[in-house]
Amino acid sequence: MVDEIQIVDFKALEAFGQRVFCALGVPAEDALWTSQVLVRADLRGIESHGVGRIRRYVSGIQKGLIAPRARMKIVHETPVSALLDAENGLGQVAGRRAMQIAMEKAIQRGTGWVAVRNSNHFGIAGCYSMMALERDLIGFSTTNSHGYVIPTFGKEPILGTNPLSVAIPAGAERPFVLDMSTAVVTSGRLEVYHRKGKKIPLGWAVDERGLPCDDPGRILANLKAHRGGGILPLGGEGEDYGGHKGYGLDAWADIFSGVLSGSGYLNTLYPKDKEGREMPSRVGHFFGAWRIDLFRPVEEFKRDMDDFIRRLRQSTKAEGQDRIYVHGEKEFELEEKHRQMGIPLSKKVYGELRAIAEELKIPWDL
Amino acid sequence: MVDEIQIVDFKALEAFGQRVFCALGVPAEDALWTSQVLVRADLRGIESHGVGRIRRYVSGIQKGLIAPRARMKIVHETPVSALLDAENGLGQVAGRRAMQIAMEKAIQRGTGWVAVRNSNHFGIAGCYSMMALERDLIGFSTTNSHGYVIPTFGKEPILGTNPLSVAIPAGAERPFVLDMSTAVVTSGRLEVYHRKGKKIPLGWAVDERGLPCDDPGRILANLKAHRGGGILPLGGEGEDYGGHKGYGLDAWADIFSGVLSGSGYLNTLYPKDKEGREMPSRVGHFFGAWRIDLFRPVEEFKRDMDDFIRRLRQSTKAEGQDRIYVHGEKEFELEEKHRQMGIPLSKKVYGELRAIAEELKIPWDL
Repeated sequence: MVDEIQIVDFKALEAFGQRVFCALGVPAEDALWTSQVLVRADLRGIESHGVGRIRRYVSGIQKGLIAPRARMKIVHETPVSALLDAENGLGQVAGRRAMQIAMEKAIQRGTGWVAVRNSNHFGIAGCYSMMALERDLIGFSTTNSHGYVIPTFGKEPILGTNPLSVAIPAGAERPFVLDMSTAVVTSGRLEVYHRKGKKIPLGWAVDERGLPCDDPGRILANLKAHRGGGILPLGGEGEDYGGHKGYGLDAWADIFSGVLSGSGYLNTLYPKDKEGREMPSRVGHFFGAWRIDLFRPVEEFKRDMDDFIRRLRQSTKAEGQDRIYVHGEKEFELEEKHRQMGIPLSKKVYGELRAIAEELKIPWDL
Repeated sequence: MVDEIQIVDFKALEAFGQRVFCALGVPAEDALWTSQVLVRADLRGIESHGVGRIRRYVSGIQKGLIAPRARMKIVHETPVSALLDAENGLGQVAGRRAMQIAMEKAIQRGTGWVAVRNSNHFGIAGCYSMMALERDLIGFSTTNSHGYVIPTFGKEPILGTNPLSVAIPAGAERPFVLDMSTAVVTSGRLEVYHRKGKKIPLGWAVDERGLPCDDPGRILANLKAHRGGGILPLGGEGEDYGGHKGYGLDAWADIFSGVLSGSGYLNTLYPKDKEGREMPSRVGHFFGAWRIDLFRPVEEFKRDMDDFIRRLRQSTKAEGQDRIYVHGEKEFELEEKHRQMGIPLSKKVYGELRAIAEELKIPWDL
C-alpha cells in the first residue's frame, strides 16, 4: 500500500504554518521562521521533521509546555560564547537566535559558541548550521531529543536520535552539509515500515529484552509503553560494526546540548510531575561558527572544497551504482525540485493540517 | 592460532622508543613524546596504533619523508586560532604543539582552534584531545590519513579511517573520551582476522568491484595493489544502516584536517613523484579546546557529568549483558592494568623492535 499524495506549494505551506503558530500566540516573525524550518525539512525530503510534526508543536503550546512568547534571555556571555535560556520557547526560535549570536561572535572574533537550555524540539539541525553559509562561515549544530536510542549492551532507550550537523561553504559546487541523526534510523522510518506491514532489517532496533528484532510494530509499541527496547545507535548492535561509536557520538551530542548548557539530558528530558503530567521538555542545543580565514583565505579554501567534492563525486563507482553523493547534494536537488513542483504531502499529513485549520479557525487554502 | 605474547614494562618501552627516535636524529624531548604517544595506544589496548607501527616511522625518517628536526612554523595566527606548518615533521610533535597552542588560546580567550598542514601520522587522536583534560578544558582532535575507506556507492578507497576525538572532564568519574575512527573497523582488525585465517563479517569491507566481501586477505591485497575496494565507513555498505553518515563524518574530518589547513586530502595524500617514489604524506590535523566556564561553572558541570555517566552505566542491560561502558572507560581500565602488569606485545612486534634495536645499534633491554 503506497501512501496517497497531495502536492502543495511550499510558499503556501509556509504561510499556512505561520498562521497556525500566529493563532497560538506566536509573534508573526517567529511564527514564519518556525514554519519555514518545518517546510525546509519537507523541501529537503526529510519528512520525519516536516509539517507532519506540526500537530506536536500545536499540542505542546496548547498544553502550556511550549511558551509561544518566551522571553528568552542570555544568562552568561563572553566575546566568543553565550548561554541562552530559551524559557521553554519554541526550539526553532531559540535555535535561530543562538545561531545568530554564534555567527556574530564568529564574524567579530573568529569563532562563536552558544549553548541553549530549556528549549524544545528545533526541527532539522541542518537549518541552523546552514545559516552560517550565508556569511561564508562554517556552521555546527546539535541538539538532544526524546529517548528512543539504546546505549551499546543496554535495552533502555535513554538516548535521543541526537543529530550532528556541519555546514561548510564551497565555491562553484554546493556546500557540504552533513546533517545526520546519530542513530541507525529515525523512529519515522520504523513508522513507515509498520504502516506498510514490512519487517525492518535486523540491526535497526532491539526488543524489550534488548535483543535484535525485525518487527517495527513491536518496537514502536514498546517505546510508547516504556517497556524497554528501541532504536540502535549508528553502527548497530554491540561493537562488531561500531555501534559503540554511534553511541559515543550520540552521547557527545547530549553532553554538549544538555550538560554543557545546564539543561536536561538522557532520561531527565521530557520529565513528568508527580501526577504523571507532562512538563516542559528541557531540551538543549549547541551551536558554533568558525571564520574560514582563521586558517586560510576564503577563496583558496572554496577552490579546494570544489576539488574535494569533485574528487569524491568522480571516484569510481561500485558495480551496479552510477552515482556517489556528497553530503547535502541529494537534499539540495530535492529542494530545488520541490520549490518548483511543490511538496508531496501524504494524504494523512494533508488531512491533519486541514483538521488543525478547522480547530484553530484559520483560512485553509492548501 | 593465537599470537604468542611477551610482557613488557611500559616505562622501559617508552625509553626504548625514545632511543629509537633519538638515534634517527629526533631531539630528546620530541623523541620521548612520540614514543609516549605510541606506548599510550598500547596501554589503552589500541594495538593498531601502538609500537607495532614504529617501523613505519623509522622507515619514514630513513627515507627522508619525515623530518626528524622539522622547523615547524606558525603561518597565521589570531587570538583564537593558528595555522601550523609542520614542515613534514613527526605528527606527534606537531600534534602536541598545536594542541598546546589551542589550549593556551582557550585559557586566554575561552576557545582555541589550530589547523596543521604538512604533517604525518600522529598516532591515536585521543592523545591530543585528552591533553585538554589536565587543564579542565574540553578537547577536540581529528586528522586525515591514508586512503583505505570507500565512499558510499563507491569502490575506490579515497578516504582515510579518519578519527574524531572529544575529551570531556567529569568530577569523581573518569572523563568521557570518545576516540573513534569513522570507518567500521581499522585495517589492523582485518590483518588480525587474516592472520588467524578467519572470515570477516559482511559489512566491514568491499572487494575490487565494490561488492560485499568476507575475505580479509583479498581486501588487504587489493588495497596494497590499488585494485579498488577497501573498508566501509561506519554504518556499512549503502545507506540502509547509515553508511552515508559514517562517510559524512569521515569527509568532515578530512575537510577540517586537510582542506581547512591547506594540506593534502582524499587521494592527494601520500603522493608519489613521476618516478613512482614516495613523497611526504601531506597529512593534516585539526585541534580545538573550549573552557567549560564559557557556559557553566566547572564544578556544576562536573557534577552533572558524573550524573550523566552514572545514568548511562546504571541503565538496564540487554539480556546476556552485564555492563554498559561509557567512552574511555574500557581504555582507562586497561591503561591502569597495563601500567602495573606490563604491556602484552605480540612476539611479532617484540621481534620487530629487537630488529630495529640491532639495525640502529641501540641498547636492547625489553
